[in-house]
Amino acid sequence: MIVQKEINVKKEKKWYTERKNKLEDRKDMKTEILNKVDHTLLAQTATWEEIKEICDDAIAYQTASVCIPPSYVKQAKEYVKDKMKICTVIGFPNGYMTTKAKAFETKDALENGADEIDMVINIGMLKDKKYEEITNEIKKIKEICENHILKVIIETCLLTRQEKIKMCEIVTEAGADYIKTSTGFSEAGATFEDVELFAKYVGKNVKIKAAGGIADFDDAEKFIALGASRLGTSRLVKIIKNEGK
Amino acid sequence: MIVQKEINVKKEKKWYTERKNKLEDRKDMKTEILNKVDHTLLAQTATWEEIKEICDDAIAYQTASVCIPPSYVKQAKEYVKDKMKICTVIGFPNGYMTTKAKAFETKDALENGADEIDMVINIGMLKDKKYEEITNEIKKIKEICENHILKVIIETCLLTRQEKIKMCEIVTEAGADYIKTSTGFSEAGATFEDVELFAKYVGKNVKIKAAGGIADFDDAEKFIALGASRLGTSRLVKIIKNEGK
Repeated sequence: MIVQKEINVKKEKKWYTERKNKLEDRKDMKTEILNKVDHTLLAQTATWEEIKEICDDAIAYQTASVCIPPSYVKQAKEYVKDKMKICTVIGFPNGYMTTKAKAFETKDALENGADEIDMVINIGMLKDKKYEEITNEIKKIKEICENHILKVIIETCLLTRQEKIKMCEIVTEAGADYIKTSTGFSEAGATFEDVELFAKYVGKNVKIKAAGGIADFDDAEKFIALGASRLGTSRLVKIIKNEGK
Repeated sequence: MIVQKEINVKKEKKWYTERKNKLEDRKDMKTEILNKVDHTLLAQTATWEEIKEICDDAIAYQTASVCIPPSYVKQAKEYVKDKMKICTVIGFPNGYMTTKAKAFETKDALENGADEIDMVINIGMLKDKKYEEITNEIKKIKEICENHILKVIIETCLLTRQEKIKMCEIVTEAGADYIKTSTGFSEAGATFEDVELFAKYVGKNVKIKAAGGIADFDDAEKFIALGASRLGTSRLVKIIKNEGK
């Protein structure tokens, strides 16, 4: 059954409208937006120096987390300690590892100090309408995550509208914390239409993360106004860093 | 120490020249080329019907293997039985999972019936010159593979010439069976120059797999002439299938 999501979206929209009216200038608005950012570096070529810079910036600009490759989680956690949350990616970006491998990777990431997990669904399974398998996989990973936040990436650019709606239902049923639009490694990233669609169809306990191609603060504001609680991007921090120069 | 590779390359070049002279027509040449193909379907959206077709075609045209996502290995193995070898991908395509996760994924794939393993190196580690870590990771995976073929994908399009040469040395030292150019998911695929470079710098026990962007049989012939023993592509089977129609 598709549960119409209202509370979260209304809350986000209210936050947005209130802030917009109340704030004295856009700088405060930007700070609040940065609090919703998973400051992300998932390039295959990322070096430790680059990851360290991402961590430093995340702390300086108080983003929600840094989102980095699994192989850097341990080192980054030791580096940031309790000053920043570490988010990492599972079954990323193609999603077609076995459930067993994704479960192991999740345990390994949490042991290394990850605070939040962004997993990719098995898209081929979705195309094959194996809804129960997908639900069970997400449930399994959520079970391992316990009270750690689990975000489920559905890679919207590869899905039909019906498949996206189905995934809103499945993510809600499986008890994940977020539905996330994109990996940033496929044909396209987050769109306003997709976030709007999510807001309409996910259950009230599921929040929304928009990721991939968020260009600037105007984009970010619009995504939040449409119902996103998190934004996966590195550009916003870069913009504000350059403004400060 | 960089060991100049000669025997394998000479063998491949000899094979190519002899066949080219001896064969009565290009059809036989094509059959021999197909024997060197890992018939590949690694799209995120691949359904079981599509994987089954890849398996059927691989058997019909006698390719070296089918190369498919880990989540399909078990089902495909049951389907093809001993009629075709199953190749799958580890840490794919970004390569930045932990060594522990890659090791688990490899074990899992072999338990599910995989015959050959194509793993991706940790490219960030290479950029950071952590050569020992990369060598140890490949050694660890080869240990798990035992006598199963291990191919090491280095994603040439993201590397400098010096990094490619270094990887020839590392793959040789670590005892892997193949060095492979590309995942097919990054900026570019195999180039003639890279295969030539590999042929010059890998040790005599390391063979070469060219993958990504192999367009037709002319390309394939040139890659083989330059020293490739395997080709990762789905296009060659498609071409010959269309010719047969």
